[in-house]
Amino acid sequence: MTVPVFDHLSTLREKNPLIHNITNYVVMNNTANALLAVGASPAMIHAVEEATGFAAISSALVINIGTLSSHWIEAMHNAANIVNENRTPWVLDPVGIGATKLRTDTVRDLLKHCPTIIRGNASEILAVVSSNQVSGKGVDSTIDTNDVRAVAKEFAAENNLVLAITGATDYITDGIRETSLQNGHPMMAKVTGMGCSSTAMVGAFLGAGIEPYEAAVAALAIFGVAGEIAAEKAEGPGSLQMKILDVLYNLSENDITTRMKIDDSITAL
Amino acid sequence: MTVPVFDHLSTLREKNPLIHNITNYVVMNNTANALLAVGASPAMIHAVEEATGFAAISSALVINIGTLSSHWIEAMHNAANIVNENRTPWVLDPVGIGATKLRTDTVRDLLKHCPTIIRGNASEILAVVSSNQVSGKGVDSTIDTNDVRAVAKEFAAENNLVLAITGATDYITDGIRETSLQNGHPMMAKVTGMGCSSTAMVGAFLGAGIEPYEAAVAALAIFGVAGEIAAEKAEGPGSLQMKILDVLYNLSENDITTRMKIDDSITAL
Amino acid sequence: MTVPVFDHLSTLREKNPLIHNITNYVVMNNTANALLAVGASPAMIHAVEEATGFAAISSALVINIGTLSSHWIEAMHNAANIVNENRTPWVLDPVGIGATKLRTDTVRDLLKHCPTIIRGNASEILAVVSSNQVSGKGVDSTIDTNDVRAVAKEFAAENNLVLAITGATDYITDGIRETSLQNGHPMMAKVTGMGCSSTAMVGAFLGAGIEPYEAAVAALAIFGVAGEIAAEKAEGPGSLQMKILDVLYNLSENDITTRMKIDDSITAL
Repeated sequence: MTVPVFDHLSTLREKNPLIHNITNYVVMNNTANALLAVGASPAMIHAVEEATGFAAISSALVINIGTLSSHWIEAMHNAANIVNENRTPWVLDPVGIGATKLRTDTVRDLLKHCPTIIRGNASEILAVVSSNQVSGKGVDSTIDTNDVRAVAKEFAAENNLVLAITGATDYITDGIRETSLQNGHPMMAKVTGMGCSSTAMVGAFLGAGIEPYEAAVAALAIFGVAGEIAAEKAEGPGSLQMKILDVLYNLSENDITTRMKIDDSITAL
Repeated sequence: MTVPVFDHLSTLREKNPLIHNITNYVVMNNTANALLAVGASPAMIHAVEEATGFAAISSALVINIGTLSSHWIEAMHNAANIVNENRTPWVLDPVGIGATKLRTDTVRDLLKHCPTIIRGNASEILAVVSSNQVSGKGVDSTIDTNDVRAVAKEFAAENNLVLAITGATDYITDGIRETSLQNGHPMMAKVTGMGCSSTAMVGAFLGAGIEPYEAAVAALAIFGVAGEIAAEKAEGPGSLQMKILDVLYNLSENDITTRMKIDDSITAL
Repeated sequence: MTVPVFDHLSTLREKNPLIHNITNYVVMNNTANALLAVGASPAMIHAVEEATGFAAISSALVINIGTLSSHWIEAMHNAANIVNENRTPWVLDPVGIGATKLRTDTVRDLLKHCPTIIRGNASEILAVVSSNQVSGKGVDSTIDTNDVRAVAKEFAAENNLVLAITGATDYITDGIRETSLQNGHPMMAKVTGMGCSSTAMVGAFLGAGIEPYEAAVAALAIFGVAGEIAAEKAEGPGSLQMKILDVLYNLSENDITTRMKIDDSITAL
């Protein structure tokens, strides 16, 4: 196992890093609880008057565009700008990019602040790549899902960031290294905000000082394993949403070593 | 059984319609989860910059005035206007109408966009009828709960919409047809947002292309049955809130046929 | 037992007081559910256009600064002002005061509307005391946690209010009387919004007409006992968040008398 997932989780639990979230209304409670359960200390702060100052004292920043408003976008820019200046890591979740111009424009603009990691599903990541090309390289409208790994790897390399793509199979790349993960459970798609929580997990590992690529791998690994265990115990999506917090809180090294399906020998090309 | 409730649920599960919600902060997570559990695909989008465009591509719109702000009211109007123009169905939840002038005014103004269905409790529906009369017929201050069916039937007929009134007994009318339902459980009143979730269920059935009157009947029927099953298994309102999502997700034809207490032979007059 | 905790809970359940909350996005759902579970009737209303009017008809007001925005601060001031004029009790939760200037300034300004009770953790309460001294007595930067009881008692006496300080040991004082409580469970710190819910409990007892000091003692007592029972049954923070609502709803006199660890013979000096 290349990435020492449980060691990183132990580091996270020990450091209890302060994670600043500017996220959407739908998932705020679950995101805060997922961060607490995994061992981080969450704060949800969006006001223009305080977002910059708070980002400056946090160990990592999570920006999630799930429910946008103009004032929030301003706070996102200010917070991303200061953490970029301070070399504090930050993760971007481009929720629903491509669905509306506001989302696409917002993500394209936020990319200027050099996110450390972008976490999205395959279609969101493809839209991120296209959004960037709008301003500079023209839109490539021929991208399809089969291309996602190759395009993602190239985008990660060119932009010096990590892409974490979640789905039935997760894929993480920093443009050089590549890892796939095959944990999780189909019922997770029936709970709102599971993607948002996985992004927050990425922020937590970043905030613990884990190197970005390993932070993304560790975050998706532990969240996939936790979701899988929770789904097996759940009677439906309501209990899954609750139990994943219990499982994250109690996650053991044995859970990870016996469950994790990781492959770092893959290659996109 | 006049309305084929389980057939409509099967249609909904098969079509997985995209439901646009402009709803309140308190219930966003639960509403999104209830929509996922019943088989729909929820989006919660309120920004003026994107609400209109998103409403235009959705299968149904849900507007819920639970926590109002001026910018949100503008987005509600824009979204309702475009779906009305596009003949996309939409449902209005007039939460707390009558409690403040802002709510009453907002609902009265939204009525101009011809909601397909209005879902509320008896006092909210009475306030809706009165609010409409403010601008046109004067306020009727003599309305009391005993009158709700007759007044609702008349209002539905005059305004060419469906009223779905929830309570110990639910009542649905399109001004001609009338149905009552007697499912649910008193503990549901101890969980916030149960009414909001039932409104979202109405939106889901509308988005699946079910005719409005039947959509309202099917939505309240499955939600009442699910609430009843969940409450019987629950140890209190916390577990009820969780279990109703599990039950909605697993709801079977047998659950409906053995539980549903429906009467479509009633008449308001 | 000086404060008749269960009698006050029975009074609350019987009166079902309307509690107006201007609170943060993260906890709205849980706060509303905790208020319903304990026997109150919650409303979450923040718009400037309706907050004043609604505060005027409520039995108590809860202001929680967890996620601030400028428009919300205006509504907080308007609502606090009207309840202060009407002699309606209100409780302030100074979430994160000290973390940003916006929070410190907001709390200092809200103190002008004479909160009946302030509920916070030890560091928040110390920051409240300091924030007040900023405008009038200068900043005392030598305050440390060991001083919290003495400083709190003095502040409560000077400002004619009740301070309710939660932690492993809770401490309540009105400047003359003092009570400590030792219920609760460490896992409660792993659930977001537990402090916010305890503040809402204080609002519920205030709304039921209980005298402020006894309201604060009763609220923290029942919430600590409920959290303790829920944590013992929980498998982690997810199920704790759910179960505390079930336990609050079902809380019996026996639960309180057998569990409550109360001491009203303490003295801060």
